[in-house]
Amino acid sequence: MSLLLGHIVDALGGSLEGGATRDVVISRIAPLEVAGPGDLSFLSNPRYQQQLAASRAACVIVAPAMRDAALARGACIVADNPYVYFARATQLWRQRNAPAQQAGVHASAVVDPMALVHPTATIGPLCVVERGAQVGAGTILKSRVTVGEGCTIGARCIVHAGVVIGADGFGFAPEQGQWVKIEQLGAVRIGDDVEIGANTCIDRGALQDTVIEDGVKLDNLIQIGHNVHIGKHSAMAGCVGVAGSATIGAHCTVGGGAIVLGHLELADNVHISAATVVTRSLTRPGQYTGMFPIDDNARWEKNAATLKQLHSLRERIKALEQALKAA
Amino acid sequence: MSLLLGHIVDALGGSLEGGATRDVVISRIAPLEVAGPGDLSFLSNPRYQQQLAASRAACVIVAPAMRDAALARGACIVADNPYVYFARATQLWRQRNAPAQQAGVHASAVVDPMALVHPTATIGPLCVVERGAQVGAGTILKSRVTVGEGCTIGARCIVHAGVVIGADGFGFAPEQGQWVKIEQLGAVRIGDDVEIGANTCIDRGALQDTVIEDGVKLDNLIQIGHNVHIGKHSAMAGCVGVAGSATIGAHCTVGGGAIVLGHLELADNVHISAATVVTRSLTRPGQYTGMFPIDDNARWEKNAATLKQLHSLRERIKALEQALKAA
Amino acid sequence: MSLLLGHIVDALGGSLEGGATRDVVISRIAPLEVAGPGDLSFLSNPRYQQQLAASRAACVIVAPAMRDAALARGACIVADNPYVYFARATQLWRQRNAPAQQAGVHASAVVDPMALVHPTATIGPLCVVERGAQVGAGTILKSRVTVGEGCTIGARCIVHAGVVIGADGFGFAPEQGQWVKIEQLGAVRIGDDVEIGANTCIDRGALQDTVIEDGVKLDNLIQIGHNVHIGKHSAMAGCVGVAGSATIGAHCTVGGGAIVLGHLELADNVHISAATVVTRSLTRPGQYTGMFPIDDNARWEKNAATLKQLHSLRERIKALEQALKAA
Repeated sequence: MSLLLGHIVDALGGSLEGGATRDVVISRIAPLEVAGPGDLSFLSNPRYQQQLAASRAACVIVAPAMRDAALARGACIVADNPYVYFARATQLWRQRNAPAQQAGVHASAVVDPMALVHPTATIGPLCVVERGAQVGAGTILKSRVTVGEGCTIGARCIVHAGVVIGADGFGFAPEQGQWVKIEQLGAVRIGDDVEIGANTCIDRGALQDTVIEDGVKLDNLIQIGHNVHIGKHSAMAGCVGVAGSATIGAHCTVGGGAIVLGHLELADNVHISAATVVTRSLTRPGQYTGMFPIDDNARWEKNAATLKQLHSLRERIKALEQALKAA
Repeated sequence: MSLLLGHIVDALGGSLEGGATRDVVISRIAPLEVAGPGDLSFLSNPRYQQQLAASRAACVIVAPAMRDAALARGACIVADNPYVYFARATQLWRQRNAPAQQAGVHASAVVDPMALVHPTATIGPLCVVERGAQVGAGTILKSRVTVGEGCTIGARCIVHAGVVIGADGFGFAPEQGQWVKIEQLGAVRIGDDVEIGANTCIDRGALQDTVIEDGVKLDNLIQIGHNVHIGKHSAMAGCVGVAGSATIGAHCTVGGGAIVLGHLELADNVHISAATVVTRSLTRPGQYTGMFPIDDNARWEKNAATLKQLHSLRERIKALEQALKAA
Repeated sequence: MSLLLGHIVDALGGSLEGGATRDVVISRIAPLEVAGPGDLSFLSNPRYQQQLAASRAACVIVAPAMRDAALARGACIVADNPYVYFARATQLWRQRNAPAQQAGVHASAVVDPMALVHPTATIGPLCVVERGAQVGAGTILKSRVTVGEGCTIGARCIVHAGVVIGADGFGFAPEQGQWVKIEQLGAVRIGDDVEIGANTCIDRGALQDTVIEDGVKLDNLIQIGHNVHIGKHSAMAGCVGVAGSATIGAHCTVGGGAIVLGHLELADNVHISAATVVTRSLTRPGQYTGMFPIDDNARWEKNAATLKQLHSLRERIKALEQALKAA
């Protein structure tokens, strides 16, 4: 479970400096403050420069601007984007040290004969792939994933355990106090290079398809409602809920626990803070937030109680202003 | 995958008007703005009347009040409730075009010999039905559903993939800084015509049963705590959490991401907005809301900071009022 | 399905008083207001003393302070901590009346030959235990649980259906508008006596392990991000999300639907109210809250609209104070 520094630089580029020799054995990738003499580390944020100086790592990946500081400590790899370099190093690590899940359909999976699974795709243990579903080249369904009837997943996707793709969207017409089911006749279409976290759900569309474009990354326990459209390379953290027919642009990010209401449109490059409720369309890029600030419970209680009178407080301020003007 | 207009009206009623002939072939149901010459569409909200005029649909379902506007465009079906008519049309579509999941127990499911599964029920792939559980007539467990020991599900229910019915409720007694488990001796009782979304969890009761009454509709990733009681025909959107021993009336709706705290009572016809936290019992019907309004992050930061002084601002207003009165 | 009072006291201690005889047959444990002549009940909170007086239970567990009130009614068991006594009674009930899930690996489970499952552990139906994973003595994986490669679970844990332990943490480096995957090379380490609720997810660490210490109790549908550390005997209610690299102390509680942002530290004995967003480290024990108070929708709308002007209202109050001082 180790690699030579030389092999790393051969595979990923960057310049080896500060007395680092190609034949140093790296046994682990580790954060600066934890790394020991056999470890490769990285400095992605100049804020942590002090940790760099103190680190016992065998070698540290740094940006050109940090080159001098790194050399003062010892061995380093200088790379344009140390964080991306680190990411690729983890990939190298996995490739060399961990055997990949074998391509093919696990014996315990239930794959409909009318499903289309690419020969290089991996259908893990206890997955269900229904009739007419398609799974693209190199895509991996880890374990206990359901891909519903007629849903398609592109190439090189990773779908973690417990994911449900293509359950019915939540559609009912009210009639005399009861609910009449609207059958969900659409499907789910997922592009290439999408990653979907554990136990996340993506519902099928009512009449048209729910669409997840290329490169989208979804964390765990996310709910994507029917007819939602998520643009390329957008990313969402855990526990997010996106209600039906919302359209989210490309390169958006949504923080953990945020909720996007139905039928809204979010432009490209919109960023939603954690736990924020999006109640209107957002047509301009930017960061948006709405969350009650945390406080000691006692102070929160006072402020929350006053909040219920906020509108009347505004009226009292108005009255004061008028009274003062009149005085 | 198509139906004649005449068959649709024969099955669902409504009057075919505006030059529509019974032998027009309908190949799809589609929204107004998408529908083409082979499609059936519907107008459920008079607000979208402009889309009606512009629609290329072969036929549009409309309410009597929209009849003239529809006739000006062409073929229509006039029905009392176009949205319900549309819902029934999707059902017809599914019946005619998609073979239903076959009744019976899938070979990969694990059903305890002491479970009672109705012969017309469908236990899909990789489901688990434990000892003493009951599944009623016509009910469908899609795939990877767990129904725990002694839990019962009524007739004509649909339970989507990944649902867990009858996991232990979250009950512990604190003792000297540790937790002593309270065994959950109750079960879950689910009525008829209930639909439960993917990866939703309904916990078993501690001493008595958790109860979901007839016609309740639950979306995906919902958590229903132990001893909760949900009244008939209530509906909840995705990511809702209902804490233990809450009682929710009939015909309630709960928006996505809302939280209902434990031991509360919600009357019939209470409607909770998305992402709202219900912290007290609600004895009167109505719409209730509590959510921090979204804003540009910079403006939110200013307002959130001020919010922490809200109580003292009220005191300052009071002081100003007294000073002005004294002046 | 019944026990003699004498057997209960023999097993759990406490003193049988008020005319209770050892040979009374107890057929059920029930809440005070529901309990009938064959039932054992308990009074854990003096607030419910009125329910005690009215209860028809065969016997009621009470604290020494409630002894007189209990004797006035009839048979009782006096115990130091009636709630803990009740908890142990439910355990006794389960032991005596419900056959435990059999130890061993269910035939339908997929356990890698390189996984280490203790002979007294139970791997329920349709579970997946990957290579190098370890499951400790007496631990129960109920059904459809995934334990990922190299993850370890201690002794006497209960893991409910649908849980995913060891899915990849959510780690990506941004590069030219796309996301480069950071392979998650760590694992998950779970201590002894941990309980994990249905469909909860605990991600593996990026470089080091995600750690759940002894005695932690997690409810359903919780998301624990990579590299999180949760201290001993902390408990979290349903739908909580803990973002990556957060460190939560021992004996903490987190209410349902709360969100803890990444890289924060919570001290021991910190208590977070339901639906609160923790946006900063909390170094002192105590109760913390942040949630928008629920209100009638109409009043909420007025207050929420005013909230967006809160900062400017403060400015207006300041101006009024200065004007009044100048006057």
